[in-house]
Amino acid sequence: MNLTMDKIVNLCKTRGFVFPGSDIYGGFANTWDFGPIGVELKNNIKRAWWKRFVQESDNTYGVDSAILMNPKVWEASGHVASFSDPKMDCKNCKTRHRADNLIEAYSKGKVNAEAMTNEGMEQYIADNDIKCPNCGKRDWTPIRQFKLMFETSRGTIDGEKDVIYLRPETCQGEYVNFLNVQRTARAKIPFAIAQIGKSFRNEITPGNFLFRTVEFEQMELQMFCKEDSSMDIYNSYKEQALKFVQDLGLSQDHLRFHDHDKLAHYAKAACDIQYLFPIGWQELNGIHHRGTWDLSRHEQFSGKSLQYLDPFTNERYIPNIIEYSIGADRLALALLCEAYDEELLEQGDTRVVMHFHPAIAPYKVAVLPLQKNLADKAQEVLNKLNKYFMCTYDEAGSIGKRYRRQDEIGTPYCVTIDFDTLEDNTVTIRERDSMKQIRLDIDKLVQYVSEKIMF
Amino acid sequence: MNLTMDKIVNLCKTRGFVFPGSDIYGGFANTWDFGPIGVELKNNIKRAWWKRFVQESDNTYGVDSAILMNPKVWEASGHVASFSDPKMDCKNCKTRHRADNLIEAYSKGKVNAEAMTNEGMEQYIADNDIKCPNCGKRDWTPIRQFKLMFETSRGTIDGEKDVIYLRPETCQGEYVNFLNVQRTARAKIPFAIAQIGKSFRNEITPGNFLFRTVEFEQMELQMFCKEDSSMDIYNSYKEQALKFVQDLGLSQDHLRFHDHDKLAHYAKAACDIQYLFPIGWQELNGIHHRGTWDLSRHEQFSGKSLQYLDPFTNERYIPNIIEYSIGADRLALALLCEAYDEELLEQGDTRVVMHFHPAIAPYKVAVLPLQKNLADKAQEVLNKLNKYFMCTYDEAGSIGKRYRRQDEIGTPYCVTIDFDTLEDNTVTIRERDSMKQIRLDIDKLVQYVSEKIMF
Repeated sequence: MNLTMDKIVNLCKTRGFVFPGSDIYGGFANTWDFGPIGVELKNNIKRAWWKRFVQESDNTYGVDSAILMNPKVWEASGHVASFSDPKMDCKNCKTRHRADNLIEAYSKGKVNAEAMTNEGMEQYIADNDIKCPNCGKRDWTPIRQFKLMFETSRGTIDGEKDVIYLRPETCQGEYVNFLNVQRTARAKIPFAIAQIGKSFRNEITPGNFLFRTVEFEQMELQMFCKEDSSMDIYNSYKEQALKFVQDLGLSQDHLRFHDHDKLAHYAKAACDIQYLFPIGWQELNGIHHRGTWDLSRHEQFSGKSLQYLDPFTNERYIPNIIEYSIGADRLALALLCEAYDEELLEQGDTRVVMHFHPAIAPYKVAVLPLQKNLADKAQEVLNKLNKYFMCTYDEAGSIGKRYRRQDEIGTPYCVTIDFDTLEDNTVTIRERDSMKQIRLDIDKLVQYVSEKIMF
Repeated sequence: MNLTMDKIVNLCKTRGFVFPGSDIYGGFANTWDFGPIGVELKNNIKRAWWKRFVQESDNTYGVDSAILMNPKVWEASGHVASFSDPKMDCKNCKTRHRADNLIEAYSKGKVNAEAMTNEGMEQYIADNDIKCPNCGKRDWTPIRQFKLMFETSRGTIDGEKDVIYLRPETCQGEYVNFLNVQRTARAKIPFAIAQIGKSFRNEITPGNFLFRTVEFEQMELQMFCKEDSSMDIYNSYKEQALKFVQDLGLSQDHLRFHDHDKLAHYAKAACDIQYLFPIGWQELNGIHHRGTWDLSRHEQFSGKSLQYLDPFTNERYIPNIIEYSIGADRLALALLCEAYDEELLEQGDTRVVMHFHPAIAPYKVAVLPLQKNLADKAQEVLNKLNKYFMCTYDEAGSIGKRYRRQDEIGTPYCVTIDFDTLEDNTVTIRERDSMKQIRLDIDKLVQYVSEKIMF
């Protein structure tokens, strides 16, 4: 099977995972809306992450901080000064390109364009006659800095301006609350603050579906620690991050670590986990050793001490930070790609099946009356189950057709109500991957499914 | 007990429910960050709503649509043209006021300022010598329209502008996906689309803590129906909405319906449920009969047919919409106020206790070793429980002091590990409200707590 992104996009649109944003208006660049099944998939992914990294951890505390922050936050973080890309437009074909990417592609990575000035890059491009990768002409505009933060304004009476930003990353919400959390949770270092929330980046490049979008949901945590234990913690998160995505079903063959050669000046180590998407190996999540950079900068810009007082040694210090961050939308895309399968059945036909881990499957159970006159009993079973799980109900078409519909959206269990059900209170429960069926008492359904869907 | 907003704000800050946004930078007007306990409370509220209105419903489908939408959406909705307030500044004390509010307060509601022009309002204010409610002077600027939508821009190279908006309401995400959802879910009218997500309004007036914030999370659904059944559905949602907040613990004495006298020109009925906050009776949620306005406008502005084809009668029509909407932050505030209690104990001292419904309590169980040398066994119990629930662990201070700490954040169950635990595998489980204690086998804890926290 040749898995293309088109195949995934198409399944998502036709089955209700994901629709183009503002669809009836012809869409809106790089935005997507999660449909009835997609929203369940994404919520399940977020719950699984929170369970693993917050609920089951004894030193990680959650927050949910505001998207709109005091603009000084983005001065301290360095985003106001330097969160932009050097872009050039091709005057011939009207496409837009990053100058640094053009140089690095041309030099096969030998020239480090990030260290060059805009003038230096323009000169290099002219000297080496670097052409537009789209149309092959060389007819560039000068480089302009393209800001990646969305700007808005609090003063909305015309003429008054007070520029603020949509956050381009959630982690600043943890940094500014470092001592609030430490104090109220009476936390001792090492401890982490975790958050799931939306971030915004003004991306204009093609997004490859959910891979890169202008708004996206981050799941990330910042571990505050002493320098002498920081590399151990960094390595531990590499392992935990890998285990998490493997436990959700991503296969080892499609995952690899990618240690960074080039580090930010303050960073002590950085690593991605890459996934083999249909568009190739791409970053799925990052683990970064950020040193004391973030808290030092916030101390400097806010004028507030952000030192931790060690209750055992009475030592005061700015802790090191290990960051672990993964995109919920990007992980949803990886899980969609991994789950997709076209199986050749014995009878000669093919079934499309999404092999989701039951914990992230949108619906846990589909309730199917064998015939329409069993609908009352089926509704009764449905109403028992939907107190515990997301369920769906389907009475249209042959039972085989209904099984196929559930396979395509990854429902792990189909419960069929037949005439025996009325007699002995049992149902048939059919498992998605093996297609095996067993007979089960209705009163045992909740426990049976609960155990199977645990993560 | 006299419950003031200050008391709630103070508890929230000191216990880790809610901190001011961008706190170390002196805050940021009308933004708040949910802390370790607050994020759990809010997530539990969102889950309870989703369970009740999506999971347990057989004709409601969820979506999670993008915050940034095609700007034509906001032309169709009418927000670009008219989502603004007429504001005047007091030149003396520099406070800002809504002109229509000033007139309605002065006339004790007898004058309908919404029907007046800006010139008419200025004239009325001059004729009646209406003074600044803050400083008592009359030294007003002219009225200016204050836009309530945050504007941003996709074109971020200087000079290029392409204005887009942060959504001021989530429901447009349902309207533009009406047919996408109907088609992929094979839904038949009446059916609803539900969403939980952030909206943004450029509020400059004092927010009263979580009551009114510049960004806030809506939980809402749009029910698409035939006109002849629409009033029944409207009335049914009034009852369901009331029952939901009552089931979460809001008392009947603090709740009332408020039917709207003034309706939008397209609306057929509108009603709020009000809650008695410490600041008085205020809107908690709304139920609106919106007629065919929204889909008709989107049909007109998008040029796409948004008619529903009835599979039984082959009739084509634009459905009516009943909207039910409640703010997650505002409901969190109501539940915080309702739960707060100062109880005089027999011994003469007072305990602060948050009587949350167990389903929304941040932590379900606190695990407390009676002495520090029981920590290993306590950790073992904790690791069993935190596979299922958010738990906390505390070994600092007397057991009475630790119970009080949990009471203050509303933890419904405290599990104490003592020396008998090592002998017979039982623990003491203490219930928050009654303070009654029973002895329970460790292996029965998960089931015991699971049953108690069901919603």
